Amino acid sequence: MTPDLASLSQDQLKALESDLSNQYDTLKQEGLSLDLTRGKPSTEQLDLSNALDGLLGGDYQSRDGVDVRNYGGLDGLTECRELGAELLGMPVEQVLAGGSSSLTLMHQAMSIAYHDGLSGPGSAWHLDKNAKCLCPVPGYDRHFAICEHLGIEMIPVPMTDAGPDMDAVEKALEQDPSIKALWCVPRFSNPTGIVYSDETVRRIAHLGRIAGEHFRVFWDNAYSVHALNDQAPALANVFDACREAGTEDSVLQFASTSKITFAGSGVAFLGASDKNLQHIKASLSALTIGPDKVNQLRHARFFAQDGSLKAHMKQHAALLKPRFDTVLKHLNDAFGDNDLGQWNAVEGGYFISFNTRPGLAKETVRLALGAGVKLTPAGATYPYGKDPEDANIRIAPSVPSVSEVDDAMRVFTLCVTLASVRQALQH
Amino acid sequence: MTPDLASLSQDQLKALESDLSNQYDTLKQEGLSLDLTRGKPSTEQLDLSNALDGLLGGDYQSRDGVDVRNYGGLDGLTECRELGAELLGMPVEQVLAGGSSSLTLMHQAMSIAYHDGLSGPGSAWHLDKNAKCLCPVPGYDRHFAICEHLGIEMIPVPMTDAGPDMDAVEKALEQDPSIKALWCVPRFSNPTGIVYSDETVRRIAHLGRIAGEHFRVFWDNAYSVHALNDQAPALANVFDACREAGTEDSVLQFASTSKITFAGSGVAFLGASDKNLQHIKASLSALTIGPDKVNQLRHARFFAQDGSLKAHMKQHAALLKPRFDTVLKHLNDAFGDNDLGQWNAVEGGYFISFNTRPGLAKETVRLALGAGVKLTPAGATYPYGKDPEDANIRIAPSVPSVSEVDDAMRVFTLCVTLASVRQALQH
Repeated sequence: MTPDLASLSQDQLKALESDLSNQYDTLKQEGLSLDLTRGKPSTEQLDLSNALDGLLGGDYQSRDGVDVRNYGGLDGLTECRELGAELLGMPVEQVLAGGSSSLTLMHQAMSIAYHDGLSGPGSAWHLDKNAKCLCPVPGYDRHFAICEHLGIEMIPVPMTDAGPDMDAVEKALEQDPSIKALWCVPRFSNPTGIVYSDETVRRIAHLGRIAGEHFRVFWDNAYSVHALNDQAPALANVFDACREAGTEDSVLQFASTSKITFAGSGVAFLGASDKNLQHIKASLSALTIGPDKVNQLRHARFFAQDGSLKAHMKQHAALLKPRFDTVLKHLNDAFGDNDLGQWNAVEGGYFISFNTRPGLAKETVRLALGAGVKLTPAGATYPYGKDPEDANIRIAPSVPSVSEVDDAMRVFTLCVTLASVRQALQH
Repeated sequence: MTPDLASLSQDQLKALESDLSNQYDTLKQEGLSLDLTRGKPSTEQLDLSNALDGLLGGDYQSRDGVDVRNYGGLDGLTECRELGAELLGMPVEQVLAGGSSSLTLMHQAMSIAYHDGLSGPGSAWHLDKNAKCLCPVPGYDRHFAICEHLGIEMIPVPMTDAGPDMDAVEKALEQDPSIKALWCVPRFSNPTGIVYSDETVRRIAHLGRIAGEHFRVFWDNAYSVHALNDQAPALANVFDACREAGTEDSVLQFASTSKITFAGSGVAFLGASDKNLQHIKASLSALTIGPDKVNQLRHARFFAQDGSLKAHMKQHAALLKPRFDTVLKHLNDAFGDNDLGQWNAVEGGYFISFNTRPGLAKETVRLALGAGVKLTPAGATYPYGKDPEDANIRIAPSVPSVSEVDDAMRVFTLCVTLASVRQALQH
């Protein structure tokens, strides 16, 4: 519990700083080495899928009679595409099952849109020298890295508790036809953890009527089934909304089993309109004969039974929830009654997004590292790594044990408080 | 056995044509449905690796202590890179183990060279509006598709029995600094099956001294261990030759286990100089967190025992050789004593390249299809699908059984002969 800093005299602030500094030095002595940087599943979570290897029992034939060991099949295996269809809420015909990484699929899709065009060569984004992408912030650093790699200028738009600030998005699209894309993580957003409201989804499906013809929403539905409890908000189906708006070509949807089975060895999915799929596949055929169908068959069989995916995700939630609860308890205890930080009580996904007072994110990360707690670099949640407020920090508590998360959050809350007090002293 | 067509009178030719046409019609009645189109392993070959699934027995930890189920490790798993090092004849430090497809790795490498540059942005090929690639012909259609996809102009150079015509290659590079690349399948070349001579390898390693700074040889060593017999010619180590010539940055080497284990679910490898690897990895990091390490561990353990790869490839050879022998016997019997066709007595790889008399490849493929034998489209072995002589046909006998190959080659040789006689009649 920290007193209201504004009510403290300079001397009281100094005394508090000195006390906190001592606590910090004591923490340093503990020699902690903890990592809250990346959204990776823990060992226990990975163990949930150990049966994958060996699951085929020598039967390498798909339901359609395909020998999955051999070449071929750009769309992926039908029964595995059905798993993707379940994750994406789309008909199986509109779903492609790819390799092990949805990041790769997203890069490929954006690269194809940029270089080749999703409606033929004349639609290639590179023909517009000012091609831009809207990036809700805070957002996912690897999305930004794709834009940066392709040389697409990124325009930040603010996130709200209901999704991207749609007034800002619509206004930007009305004013600038060079905006070609919008990144979205619609359920349990990375990093703020919020779920886009039905109204937001409806307005996003409408963007295809406002934006230029070659505009695409990159709908990274990475956490579609990753709720921490049964009451977590549902996400409206964006393609249903697109069908209503007549904008089915304007959204590309992605998902993967990376945070369902094995993080590095899952299956990635792309869901899109027939027209988009056709152009994407034409380009993809230059770089692959087809995905790893053996691994796709493993995944299809692993989740073959009705309800097995849901049951599996409940086991993940049982492992993740205590870690998230620990983070939230520390944040509530330390900052619930003051204005040193803001965060959301997230109900799914892999992250908690924390905002310090302006100008303190980098300093907090630095202090935490000094006491043995590694955090995602401040700024990473913004395009070009530049958080104009220097306030946002992404907390990823999935890998450490609950007791380690507890240790790490003791350090974190102390560092935020110490940085805040030192800042107050200087004003 | 076909008589010398030039020695036959018009009437004799007519009689021969009539006889062959009757044979052709009889063959059609057999209702064959055979496929010699693609270089895929047969079911029996795939069976050789069935132990892969389940091999890990729940032990997902690499030798270095990496949990292979989780994210990370752009270079791939050390013990799997060692397998790549064995295939490529390079130090493990220079080998990256990627996903399941070397085609994808080649596309990625060429795309990075084209868009990003392999020595920084100033080296990107796209800065040269006339960027070109030398393509030995006949060659591999999927190599050509990569160039076509990236918009790189292809310049054919002739293949000889010792590799690409190096006089032509050197001359082209001396005259045109816009030539940025050369495709090579150095051992058991696709489709001619020849092995590059030591002299060719030495001269290729020297190209870095003749060509522009950003020139790269794409050394697709797809069949490095795919000999049909122990006496098949060895391939000189191109990187040894590069070290001697001081041109290690000029060659990118590729391989995969696609035709060693499971065609669609193997591991692909890239071998390159430190400098090239560094630039390629910087770009790759925008599109992947790392490859499927679970599958890499499977492969490493499958071939962990010294000599096991060699023994495994002998089993492949035992399955492939009778099929190749059948093709060669039919070709010898039909054309050994006349000039209706040329081919090589290949000792490895997946293909036999056959040249009809000029102008007869398309017609032969058409006739064969009419009798139920599917061949790779004529022209596919040339850039843009254009064989100027309309003579080359690629025969891929790995998938059908020996008796099916026998049936298919009866059809093939008849179709070549029939087309030749009909052509002779018209002259």
